[in-house]
Amino acid sequence: MRTEFDSLGQYDVPDDALYGIHTMRAYDNFRISDVPVSEFPELVRSFAMVKKAAAAANHRFGVLSAEKTRAIDLACDALLAGEHHEHFIVDMMQGGAGTSTNMNANEVIANLGLRHMGHPPGSYAQLHPNDDVNKSQSTNDTYPTALRLAILQRLEGLSVEHQRLRDAFATKAAEFDAIPKLGRTQLQDAVPMTLGQEFRSFANTIEEDIERLRDVSDLLMEVNLGGTAIGTGVNAPVGYAAVAVEELRRVSGLPLRQARDLVEASSDLGGFVAFSGILKRVAVKLSKICNDLRLLSSGPRSGIGEIRLPAVQAGSSIMPGKVNPVIPEVVNQVAYQVIGNDLTVTMAAEAGQLQLNAMEPVAILNILQSIRILKRAMACLTDRCVLGIEADEARCRGLLENSLAVATSLVPQIGYESAARVAKHALNTGVSVQQALVELGIDAQPLAS
Amino acid sequence: MRTEFDSLGQYDVPDDALYGIHTMRAYDNFRISDVPVSEFPELVRSFAMVKKAAAAANHRFGVLSAEKTRAIDLACDALLAGEHHEHFIVDMMQGGAGTSTNMNANEVIANLGLRHMGHPPGSYAQLHPNDDVNKSQSTNDTYPTALRLAILQRLEGLSVEHQRLRDAFATKAAEFDAIPKLGRTQLQDAVPMTLGQEFRSFANTIEEDIERLRDVSDLLMEVNLGGTAIGTGVNAPVGYAAVAVEELRRVSGLPLRQARDLVEASSDLGGFVAFSGILKRVAVKLSKICNDLRLLSSGPRSGIGEIRLPAVQAGSSIMPGKVNPVIPEVVNQVAYQVIGNDLTVTMAAEAGQLQLNAMEPVAILNILQSIRILKRAMACLTDRCVLGIEADEARCRGLLENSLAVATSLVPQIGYESAARVAKHALNTGVSVQQALVELGIDAQPLAS
Amino acid sequence: MRTEFDSLGQYDVPDDALYGIHTMRAYDNFRISDVPVSEFPELVRSFAMVKKAAAAANHRFGVLSAEKTRAIDLACDALLAGEHHEHFIVDMMQGGAGTSTNMNANEVIANLGLRHMGHPPGSYAQLHPNDDVNKSQSTNDTYPTALRLAILQRLEGLSVEHQRLRDAFATKAAEFDAIPKLGRTQLQDAVPMTLGQEFRSFANTIEEDIERLRDVSDLLMEVNLGGTAIGTGVNAPVGYAAVAVEELRRVSGLPLRQARDLVEASSDLGGFVAFSGILKRVAVKLSKICNDLRLLSSGPRSGIGEIRLPAVQAGSSIMPGKVNPVIPEVVNQVAYQVIGNDLTVTMAAEAGQLQLNAMEPVAILNILQSIRILKRAMACLTDRCVLGIEADEARCRGLLENSLAVATSLVPQIGYESAARVAKHALNTGVSVQQALVELGIDAQPLAS
Amino acid sequence: MRTEFDSLGQYDVPDDALYGIHTMRAYDNFRISDVPVSEFPELVRSFAMVKKAAAAANHRFGVLSAEKTRAIDLACDALLAGEHHEHFIVDMMQGGAGTSTNMNANEVIANLGLRHMGHPPGSYAQLHPNDDVNKSQSTNDTYPTALRLAILQRLEGLSVEHQRLRDAFATKAAEFDAIPKLGRTQLQDAVPMTLGQEFRSFANTIEEDIERLRDVSDLLMEVNLGGTAIGTGVNAPVGYAAVAVEELRRVSGLPLRQARDLVEASSDLGGFVAFSGILKRVAVKLSKICNDLRLLSSGPRSGIGEIRLPAVQAGSSIMPGKVNPVIPEVVNQVAYQVIGNDLTVTMAAEAGQLQLNAMEPVAILNILQSIRILKRAMACLTDRCVLGIEADEARCRGLLENSLAVATSLVPQIGYESAARVAKHALNTGVSVQQALVELGIDAQPLAS
Repeated sequence: MRTEFDSLGQYDVPDDALYGIHTMRAYDNFRISDVPVSEFPELVRSFAMVKKAAAAANHRFGVLSAEKTRAIDLACDALLAGEHHEHFIVDMMQGGAGTSTNMNANEVIANLGLRHMGHPPGSYAQLHPNDDVNKSQSTNDTYPTALRLAILQRLEGLSVEHQRLRDAFATKAAEFDAIPKLGRTQLQDAVPMTLGQEFRSFANTIEEDIERLRDVSDLLMEVNLGGTAIGTGVNAPVGYAAVAVEELRRVSGLPLRQARDLVEASSDLGGFVAFSGILKRVAVKLSKICNDLRLLSSGPRSGIGEIRLPAVQAGSSIMPGKVNPVIPEVVNQVAYQVIGNDLTVTMAAEAGQLQLNAMEPVAILNILQSIRILKRAMACLTDRCVLGIEADEARCRGLLENSLAVATSLVPQIGYESAARVAKHALNTGVSVQQALVELGIDAQPLAS
Repeated sequence: MRTEFDSLGQYDVPDDALYGIHTMRAYDNFRISDVPVSEFPELVRSFAMVKKAAAAANHRFGVLSAEKTRAIDLACDALLAGEHHEHFIVDMMQGGAGTSTNMNANEVIANLGLRHMGHPPGSYAQLHPNDDVNKSQSTNDTYPTALRLAILQRLEGLSVEHQRLRDAFATKAAEFDAIPKLGRTQLQDAVPMTLGQEFRSFANTIEEDIERLRDVSDLLMEVNLGGTAIGTGVNAPVGYAAVAVEELRRVSGLPLRQARDLVEASSDLGGFVAFSGILKRVAVKLSKICNDLRLLSSGPRSGIGEIRLPAVQAGSSIMPGKVNPVIPEVVNQVAYQVIGNDLTVTMAAEAGQLQLNAMEPVAILNILQSIRILKRAMACLTDRCVLGIEADEARCRGLLENSLAVATSLVPQIGYESAARVAKHALNTGVSVQQALVELGIDAQPLAS
Repeated sequence: MRTEFDSLGQYDVPDDALYGIHTMRAYDNFRISDVPVSEFPELVRSFAMVKKAAAAANHRFGVLSAEKTRAIDLACDALLAGEHHEHFIVDMMQGGAGTSTNMNANEVIANLGLRHMGHPPGSYAQLHPNDDVNKSQSTNDTYPTALRLAILQRLEGLSVEHQRLRDAFATKAAEFDAIPKLGRTQLQDAVPMTLGQEFRSFANTIEEDIERLRDVSDLLMEVNLGGTAIGTGVNAPVGYAAVAVEELRRVSGLPLRQARDLVEASSDLGGFVAFSGILKRVAVKLSKICNDLRLLSSGPRSGIGEIRLPAVQAGSSIMPGKVNPVIPEVVNQVAYQVIGNDLTVTMAAEAGQLQLNAMEPVAILNILQSIRILKRAMACLTDRCVLGIEADEARCRGLLENSLAVATSLVPQIGYESAARVAKHALNTGVSVQQALVELGIDAQPLAS
Repeated sequence: MRTEFDSLGQYDVPDDALYGIHTMRAYDNFRISDVPVSEFPELVRSFAMVKKAAAAANHRFGVLSAEKTRAIDLACDALLAGEHHEHFIVDMMQGGAGTSTNMNANEVIANLGLRHMGHPPGSYAQLHPNDDVNKSQSTNDTYPTALRLAILQRLEGLSVEHQRLRDAFATKAAEFDAIPKLGRTQLQDAVPMTLGQEFRSFANTIEEDIERLRDVSDLLMEVNLGGTAIGTGVNAPVGYAAVAVEELRRVSGLPLRQARDLVEASSDLGGFVAFSGILKRVAVKLSKICNDLRLLSSGPRSGIGEIRLPAVQAGSSIMPGKVNPVIPEVVNQVAYQVIGNDLTVTMAAEAGQLQLNAMEPVAILNILQSIRILKRAMACLTDRCVLGIEADEARCRGLLENSLAVATSLVPQIGYESAARVAKHALNTGVSVQQALVELGIDAQPLAS
């Protein structure tokens, strides 16, 4: 163990740890969620990008030496390459508005930089976590900036699965296009449609969500880097903010923008609320689709049974041969989790006070987890369910023909009231619409679609 | 118009208004929900009880004259008799932790009392809204106390409808007891049961909620009357709190208790959170039941169709003869509203600060509205749906017999794996379980229940 | 009373009622929220627009006579002019996916049209609510379309108040620009800023919401008119949908678009979820701002007290002279209501099944109410609070000077650790940063901003 | 790898795995939350108790041999002793209503039992996961039963921390009893109190939650063991349910009761909703308390600053010497998480359909996680914050004396209106209440408490 010091005193740190005293204190302070920062590698990479960009900007302003800039740069590159993430040990759920995560990054980068400079860990006189790595920065601008980068990176994976799911439904829609079936409203037999139309509506509703996520992710391109403590840029050189964002654009390859009002941006979680609201919408739609898949496959004999979901495991420990819609069911549950997480994000956002929102850590934890489970749920739904769905065409046709769905097509011919009389007669006597017309002596022709 | 005065200046009040300057200011300040206090007559009555009890207690301590006590008493009696409620004009959604509602009550009671004393409205030197009607009181003890009384009164009506709904399901259960049908888990055909068992489970799940509401309403018997501004009893005579609660027990007929810690009770909305949480549970159960009713009545031909809900209106503007489950649907929506309202209550409760929770008005508005719509929804469900439900016994039997539900009964005889093989064979070839046993040469006997 | 008939039988309707049997049944079925459709006049007008456009489209396709078209047109114009709204009596909270509201519109328009044609109410052989007014339509396309129009109309009023509130904060920001004060993070003294910066951040955060609402309202421009029952256009002439939307663009003056997939659009509430999510964001920001106003005005003596809110009513029934932040408090409560309402919308959206979402009524009720109370809350906040806010400049300066905020400016000069030592010494001994530097013998100069 | 078989075909299982084919399929199907069942050891132990009790009951009914019963018993004892939990690999978030968790338990116990019997894993002919370990059981009664046992076990740890937190506040209350301070309502200076009263209210409000949790946990004592698939007891011997519950009481040491209606109990999550609602209440109260701690410690110089929280880490990466209330902040965030989790539980409960609720897995995951983080948050709050809180007595007295809090005490002497005039004069001129009385020539005596 080596001993490090801060204004509160001293603390022991493991010899081989790249983190330092602040991280150690925070690690001991927050044992809450068991989810360390390292579990979200894109967040580590995002911090590396931010610190790399800040060092470059500081160097351009002449406030960071070439040697220190080089050391920080190399350290960040290692993190970007996926190395040393295990040193990001602080709990994602933490007090202090993200200070512990930022200091964890500052300390790891300082000690990695020191290694490049040939110094032992902890020799901060040569490269200091605060004075050098964090120069011209505050948790209050670097943390929100890194969070946005992390979401944007993670979104890419989500988008891939989103598109695969849409494509899977579109493929099935084409496959099912020639299968007529009964459309249902309010769970009541309504009018004819095709199974292809039904599945295409799933593809299209997902397509809309893909667009919405793309739209809302644009809000996250706006960063407050350079605002430092409260958006006034205290302790940063004049003009630093614009340069730092320019460097971050370069490092990240993302079209980032500087927030219009850095004071506003320091405390506002509006972008996260809007983004989480769209994740909630994605969840709502997925849940509705899965509810439908479960309804359509209900049975197999004494329900609707128009489609068959692939059997991925034995359904019951007591009922032999039972196969349950377990994949849609787990997606429903993921949807409920995402909706709950959105509430947590909302409450965190509302709790901002004056120049900062100290509750950002729980917001980002919930957003990143929602993205992760949505992505996994969609992959699971695509591969283990949708692609293997089979239509029971005979059942589709049988239920349609047995229904009174064609009664609606009588309305333009004989009017709503007469058509209602026909439908009622058919239902009460158990005959078909065609037969009811005959029995009531009405001359009209029901249409199949 | 008459002119009244307060520390902020003067304000015009309609001549015939029983309220005064504070009410007028509040009425003009809060034009938000369009729901005046008068829309909840039990809240007006509750304030009348509180003021009547306080006056009696004050008189016992010798700090309120017999004449004033008498005047206040008569005024409260008029409110209890349902008179003059139209003078409670302030918006239920108001800032100020309920001060406006309390002052509305103080002013109406003062002016009514003045009328009894033979003085014109506004002659507060004879009977003062603050110094006399509000004596030994604060909004911060009278408002929370009155809210509890209001909920407890309103609960009685809810309880009546709750019991009627339970009874309706129990009646149907008895009626349907001899109808065998298929039980379903995860929307998949499972094992046999009776329709009576299904409906009895609705009755019993509601019965549990009735008990839970009874339990939780006991929490509301604890009141903080006598704590005045922050629970320390400032400006009340020593010993006043116990006497005031005793008088309120007498006036209300309810077994009220004094809160153990009046400081705690002044700012805590925990009782409301717990109560609203149970309303949410009631809503969740109602929603599940209504979902089931809609599933069971789906069709009429191409769904489950085991029961028929009474037709209460034509179902569709375009599809003749369609009858929709509109009553369960509106109950579902009420449930969603109650669940949303519970979130509002939760957020309000979380927003308490130091010695008070200023957000009580929105909490009570949501609780009272939730109780009201739940009561109406249950009455509607009982009278316009449940009592008229008919079983389609042939359909129940047909779906059961056509299913593979009896396969489970083979497990104790031939083991889970063999039984699964039988079920799979039956499903794949379209035969019955009995026939599958024959075809596979297995000697076992499926049981019907 | 006159007697009307439908497939369920007959029902009495008041003689002078413009509505008919369906409305009467629905009125009796749904006594839930006490909020009739007429309470939202823009919803009545929206239905008038839809019916007017549909009639025009039907006429162009030759399926509605000139005389009937003319009668419907005149009837709709009367509704657009604000007449006869009192005949929209059905409860906003209703089962049946909006059928009752649509039929209420169909019946009122039919009877108004009949009046123009010289026929008594109820003579539907001449002009039929379903066969003529609802021709080529279903509740399932007209209701969602009208809901979008209603929101878009109501949004205009919200936008006006949104902008007024932004302007009020901007005005105050300009007024307070020269007032230095302490910035605070995590409620702890942080670094200097100006009161103008603080208020400008309020203006800017609201500006962003105005933009977000504009963005999301574009989603609502997409309508499913012409899809009829389930999006397949059953009972509408081929090509009708495009023409109907074209007519509705003309009638409404809004740049409406036809939904890309009418089947999808029939059951999807995604647009409402997204829109409600932004209303929630607006609420979250308003709540945060109001929390700040309450913190900044806390005291008046023993809190922060940097600003004074205008006194709009006496604050307390027991504490004389107390003035409370009642306007921000009521806005907080509105925010909690809107957040709760968003949950209700979310649950309703998730409950869609197959080709329809029957829970739209509760969704639209909550959205329209959220818009209404947000609008009123913002007007109230602007006029009764923000515009009258005064700064206590001496207090702002005093708290800043008394704080250790300038310690941060030492970091670039002497490093984080030494600066921390200075700050700690100052805090522990009660001296200023300047004095602490002297006492510790450190040569550095704290900066004021 | 060994190969196992089921009705869907075959699957490879690692040689040393105690789980079998069902677990493997489920493990591959559900890669969602990364939280395996083993992460909640009390859930594994609960399943061991249930299986042990069921085996004993089966043996008593003569349907399970002594040898098999003994094998199952020994296997369960090993799990109860904490061994082999790493074989519970299925994801807590799973489709299928818990079947995968139940089968994971059945397979592990079967293979452990086989080991005791001297057979290799997978030789299920000797001891079968379904036919023997799961005999007379279904997921649908064992899973809900085990969940309740798991919650009840976990609650004990929560209760310990709950009580420690209450005691910590009570200790501080006693310590602070003699410190007079200003009470505040609506963040405005109100009337005098003591710091001890303020802290005692925290202790008491927590005490109430301890009682509520105790009350609600009684609901969880009601189990549906013996109901098997849908509550009708299919495949269990007559009388089995009562015996199984009796055995489970013995095994668990808990006063469990059989649910009154096993059909109802199979699909109802009402107990979980009620329980989660109380967890939400606990969260709301903790959040309110932490908000207060942060307000009371705001400053250190330019806020309220009446108390000092212990410094547990450096507060800021940029602002030297800043110490933030990081412990209360993380507790706030835990509260928001618990509130979000409660919504997830609510949605899962509402999604029950007919004879089962397939969404139980996400409900129990959220409840167990909420209990865990609440427990940790409370331990953290007690040890790292509350016990170290110091009062700034001088500041408490100073703010009180400088305030106008004593003005309220004038009301009984000179009336509300005159007292208001005094307060206003004092505020406007900056003098004390005493001085204002002199200047206005009023003869009255302000009281200090």
